[in-house]
Amino acid sequence: MNATPDTITAAILVIGDEILSGRTKDKNIGTIADYLTAAGIDLREVRIVPDEADMIVEAVNALRARYTYLFTTGGIGPTHDDITADCVAKAFGVGIDIDERARAMLLERHKPEDLNEARLRMARIPFGADLIANPISKAPGFRIGNVMVMAGVPAIMQAMLDAVGPTLKGGAAMLSETIEARGIPEGTYAGELGAIAKNHAAVSIGSYPMMTPEGFRNRIVVRSRDGAALAGAVAEVEALVKRLSA
Amino acid sequence: MNATPDTITAAILVIGDEILSGRTKDKNIGTIADYLTAAGIDLREVRIVPDEADMIVEAVNALRARYTYLFTTGGIGPTHDDITADCVAKAFGVGIDIDERARAMLLERHKPEDLNEARLRMARIPFGADLIANPISKAPGFRIGNVMVMAGVPAIMQAMLDAVGPTLKGGAAMLSETIEARGIPEGTYAGELGAIAKNHAAVSIGSYPMMTPEGFRNRIVVRSRDGAALAGAVAEVEALVKRLSA
Repeated sequence: MNATPDTITAAILVIGDEILSGRTKDKNIGTIADYLTAAGIDLREVRIVPDEADMIVEAVNALRARYTYLFTTGGIGPTHDDITADCVAKAFGVGIDIDERARAMLLERHKPEDLNEARLRMARIPFGADLIANPISKAPGFRIGNVMVMAGVPAIMQAMLDAVGPTLKGGAAMLSETIEARGIPEGTYAGELGAIAKNHAAVSIGSYPMMTPEGFRNRIVVRSRDGAALAGAVAEVEALVKRLSA
Repeated sequence: MNATPDTITAAILVIGDEILSGRTKDKNIGTIADYLTAAGIDLREVRIVPDEADMIVEAVNALRARYTYLFTTGGIGPTHDDITADCVAKAFGVGIDIDERARAMLLERHKPEDLNEARLRMARIPFGADLIANPISKAPGFRIGNVMVMAGVPAIMQAMLDAVGPTLKGGAAMLSETIEARGIPEGTYAGELGAIAKNHAAVSIGSYPMMTPEGFRNRIVVRSRDGAALAGAVAEVEALVKRLSA
């Protein structure tokens, strides 16, 4: 199943040395993936890069050109290694400075005398961006063009995703059915499953082995944006599994 | 801290629609990241792409050219959506066919009469590749050039990583110390921490906020391959935290 011209697509760019070193295990990719799937938006690519300007700028430009939406996570705090906002401004070729709307948000949490230079970094927003509210710690994310810049802390990222999600164009939601192939080894059904996949261009069929203490447990997942096409393929897969279980 | 010419670098390419749809949550990135950090290899980039030949070939070629090693996970089973081996062969411009060593491995698990066309897909190996043993389900991964092609099922990936790991050049291991900044907000220490980072070119300093029921808990992580440089920077960060806690 290929993306059609009216498919709404997306990419995620995770920014942070701590993910690449293994010190922090990313949770945001799975959260955003689930959100996009439910919204009918096709997540097509994810990249994780370190806190280095060249790599961030290159990835932002590659991904925003290629997909309908790009979501970034991480690198928007007050410390020297938080360089995402500056890199996004550079990628778009626009200026960046302290944004008065963002400063006002920070003042909901911090006293004016505590709004030092470091904290004010969190109010640096590229020119032309819209803010994404952060109900938890106030420092906002932002949207510029098709790029949504969000925090890396999972609870804050989730709140920002909830805030910006309703503003996105949704596609037709992806429909999905899972057929349990439990006892049947992948290698036994693979040939016929491939033939079914070939005959149903509007559906995507995946086979996913999972190890359990009792051995492999296999699942076949059929996905499509077209309910009738989905039902047709599912019926054939179910018949195949039933025949092989007999 | 930038990569020096003798830094050993790596990238990961995760291949699979099921990760992008959110249906499966990736666990391999964190496992490989931990492994590489312990081996002194610098993980520089991760990409996740769907089961689509063009995207896989493009990503393999981009990443193998840029880093010392590339690790791929996923797409080496027996079903029609398992196209990683063919894509890697295409990326390298080499042929691919059933490999007799791989067939022999499959015969350790399957009777000859069960080795149908689909299962034999798992013995398709690009010309010139070395096999990576799979003690769990026998179907091997492989190494071609600087690319390690591994399974997506986490237990099998881990076994393959253990098998191939000792053959890799390790770098000087990255040393790391964590300073708890608990009660001190990031915005309070960010300015001075940035100055310390600027003065210590051989170390990398990151500040990582974490939300807990008691509010934010911040950690400062100092990393370097040079023990003396690490100790010098850590002493300054500890003095800063101590002064701000007083």
